[in-house]
Amino acid sequence: MSDIVAALRAALGDRVLTDPETLAAHRRDYWALAEIHDLLGRGAPPPRAVVRARSTEDVAQTLRICRAGHAAVIPFGGASGVCGAIEATPESVVLSTRGLEGLVRLSDHNLTACFRAGTLGIDAEERVRQDGLTIGHWPQSVALSTVGGWVATRASGQYSTGYGSIEDLVLALEVVLPDGSVLRTRETPRAAAGPDLRQVFMGSEGTLGVITEVTFSLRPLPEASVGQASHFAAFDDGIEAIRRIMRAGWRPPVVRLYDALESQRTFAAWCPAGRSLLILLHEGPASAVKEEVEAVAALSAAAGGDEADVACVGHWLEHRNSVPSFRELNEQGLVVDTIEVACTWDLAPRLYADVTRSLRHVPGILMASAHTSHSYRSGTNFYFTFAVRVEERERMPAAYRACWERTMNASVAAGAGIAHHHGIGRVRRNWLVDEIGDAGVALLRDLKRALDPDGLLNPGVLLPPPGPR
Amino acid sequence: MSDIVAALRAALGDRVLTDPETLAAHRRDYWALAEIHDLLGRGAPPPRAVVRARSTEDVAQTLRICRAGHAAVIPFGGASGVCGAIEATPESVVLSTRGLEGLVRLSDHNLTACFRAGTLGIDAEERVRQDGLTIGHWPQSVALSTVGGWVATRASGQYSTGYGSIEDLVLALEVVLPDGSVLRTRETPRAAAGPDLRQVFMGSEGTLGVITEVTFSLRPLPEASVGQASHFAAFDDGIEAIRRIMRAGWRPPVVRLYDALESQRTFAAWCPAGRSLLILLHEGPASAVKEEVEAVAALSAAAGGDEADVACVGHWLEHRNSVPSFRELNEQGLVVDTIEVACTWDLAPRLYADVTRSLRHVPGILMASAHTSHSYRSGTNFYFTFAVRVEERERMPAAYRACWERTMNASVAAGAGIAHHHGIGRVRRNWLVDEIGDAGVALLRDLKRALDPDGLLNPGVLLPPPGPR
Repeated sequence: MSDIVAALRAALGDRVLTDPETLAAHRRDYWALAEIHDLLGRGAPPPRAVVRARSTEDVAQTLRICRAGHAAVIPFGGASGVCGAIEATPESVVLSTRGLEGLVRLSDHNLTACFRAGTLGIDAEERVRQDGLTIGHWPQSVALSTVGGWVATRASGQYSTGYGSIEDLVLALEVVLPDGSVLRTRETPRAAAGPDLRQVFMGSEGTLGVITEVTFSLRPLPEASVGQASHFAAFDDGIEAIRRIMRAGWRPPVVRLYDALESQRTFAAWCPAGRSLLILLHEGPASAVKEEVEAVAALSAAAGGDEADVACVGHWLEHRNSVPSFRELNEQGLVVDTIEVACTWDLAPRLYADVTRSLRHVPGILMASAHTSHSYRSGTNFYFTFAVRVEERERMPAAYRACWERTMNASVAAGAGIAHHHGIGRVRRNWLVDEIGDAGVALLRDLKRALDPDGLLNPGVLLPPPGPR
Repeated sequence: MSDIVAALRAALGDRVLTDPETLAAHRRDYWALAEIHDLLGRGAPPPRAVVRARSTEDVAQTLRICRAGHAAVIPFGGASGVCGAIEATPESVVLSTRGLEGLVRLSDHNLTACFRAGTLGIDAEERVRQDGLTIGHWPQSVALSTVGGWVATRASGQYSTGYGSIEDLVLALEVVLPDGSVLRTRETPRAAAGPDLRQVFMGSEGTLGVITEVTFSLRPLPEASVGQASHFAAFDDGIEAIRRIMRAGWRPPVVRLYDALESQRTFAAWCPAGRSLLILLHEGPASAVKEEVEAVAALSAAAGGDEADVACVGHWLEHRNSVPSFRELNEQGLVVDTIEVACTWDLAPRLYADVTRSLRHVPGILMASAHTSHSYRSGTNFYFTFAVRVEERERMPAAYRACWERTMNASVAAGAGIAHHHGIGRVRRNWLVDEIGDAGVALLRDLKRALDPDGLLNPGVLLPPPGPR
């Protein structure tokens, strides 16, 4: 088995790392349950080795060597995922993309920028900003996540309502397939040339290939950026306001509605108790933004919204990426996580009510709340947050799983989609069949078997284990 | 072999048709070369049988029976495709979706409408218009093509610059897989739940499954719809104007720029000789349209555009779906076709120049022209038209192939994408490798083998024959 490490060393030299510190730093992602398991002293073990690839060919060699040696390979970007898509085993090789860094090429004329996959999101965004451009993708993890990870997890950012999710921002990909061959999709704005192969890898979570380059279709930095806010007597009234805004064709990049609990928790200075705060950010040509602000104000008022002090938008912008550490909360006896789902408009009131009600039945529950942060013509997402007090640490995993089970089961029962933008990983894999059906799971298994017949790429992720769940 | 027909009849009764007239009407699509072959008396033969499915279960049964009997199945919608994706063989069974017709459900609240796949595009659009809604997809074939065909061919419509192509309009699909199992994607506005399985079938051209239902995410009919036009001294100046309009974030649904030849051919009354006409249609809230019209006028003028009489937009709207019959032209000794490709902005001037120049070397060429009709942040498409006079009818296929080869080769040499919205079919399959590379073709073959191990679904289409081309 250590033949693998020797073979990797022979081919890749010092890009193969086995020092305990490096191995320990590549055990897992930011899954809340993995944090709990760490606290309980039974966290994921270190992998056998970490390969820090510096080129596409390094990635290809790693995959070929591991295939020949029948070793599992776990692609690893920023490890900021929260669904357990990275969890090492003692036999596995972790393949870090963080050495694949930086800009490959940028065209202001074409509004395109190609980055190596291990480039941190914030670095990529800052690079294109030097040229007055923006990727426009703002996941909360932007300072930690890689552009390749954005693609592999099928991410959405905070500005998605106007600018789209990752599938709307990526022009082309380079991907190393499990056999070491390299797929490059053409840098063309649109094609009808068979299935869109980029889409096979968006959301593949490291199970079908390793993304090595990402080319974005950019936007110029907006001429104007204007905040707006209002509050509603009921969360559902705010949802209805957003529905009408989407329906009319307005597309502010940021459209976030918090339920009364979250509005008080984060925006008490700007939102009366018991009301739900809606914050928006409009961007674009100044004249278009002006029209949009006026139209949205009228639509919000018609749905019962009262104008709120726009300072709350600045507050959100300033604090939007601060998240408390799971470890700190766990140590205080709290089990906390967020779960995002999506649904068509008709299901939204029931979905919100059912999930929060079901969570409130979990023993020790302190809070079950939600906001919506990504809206579309035909529906929206919910981003639920739960917090449970658990006296005995040993009971934390069970409490965690109970909250997830209740949220997933209530979402499925309501007819909603089980995952809006965090992905499947390990935490949702048993509900994948509810999302895409038996035929969908079978199709994904077929695809996996065709590309990775030995099942070596990130095993255990995305697809549920075979057999009854 | 007639066991297949007997087995189909036993299961499907009068949905199985073998009368000569029906068989003759299901031989092929609207590929120009198939028309020429018909004229030459060596057109595609009739299939063995036509199954006119009336339900998803009819489709599943047909696929199961044909798989058991090892018979090729050719899915058949409106047959308005122009790339040879439908071409019967004497042993094949044609599976028509035209009996799968009509609205399944419509939700004004969600802006969604689900249609059976064989519904004609125009019927679907007219149905949602009764409720003040629009699909917003206007391929030239809208009166002939089916909504399932739109998905299978990965179509774009004339309003795509503002409203998107089929991948931006479809919310959910029902597809019967080659083994007869039924895949239903969830009706959710967005998901990060593995690869987007809808995308496997968009552009699959009948080779991976049979689409049986299509759910669209709709828009309300626009409050305002305003035409605009200008003309430019050079085609490239007009391209540059469009680039700047896209870059600034304006999205008129219709943005069409004709080269000097096409401007004279179609719009002589509104465009001075030698100049290139740009026509636009703006839609949306009246106030937003007003802003857009003013901004676009300024951008066009800055790029050298002179305002043109907006009546030309009305002329286009009126005549946009009239096309001359290939047969009539062939009988006059003319070989004519259109070829659409796409590229990033930097390649556009060279691509246009190279393709039209290369086509002018074809003996007997009468015309090589182009317009652009679908634009994006990072590039645009070209829609080339060629006409060749061929004295001997027997030489028509060679002249046809010469024009295609020159266009495809010049596009590939320029670095452009080989297909914007008509698909691959048979006419482009030998260039698919230039679009997606060896690894991409291998991936598609893997996918095909996994879903359709006996290669029975629409054989000969999309994928190039194995071996060197």
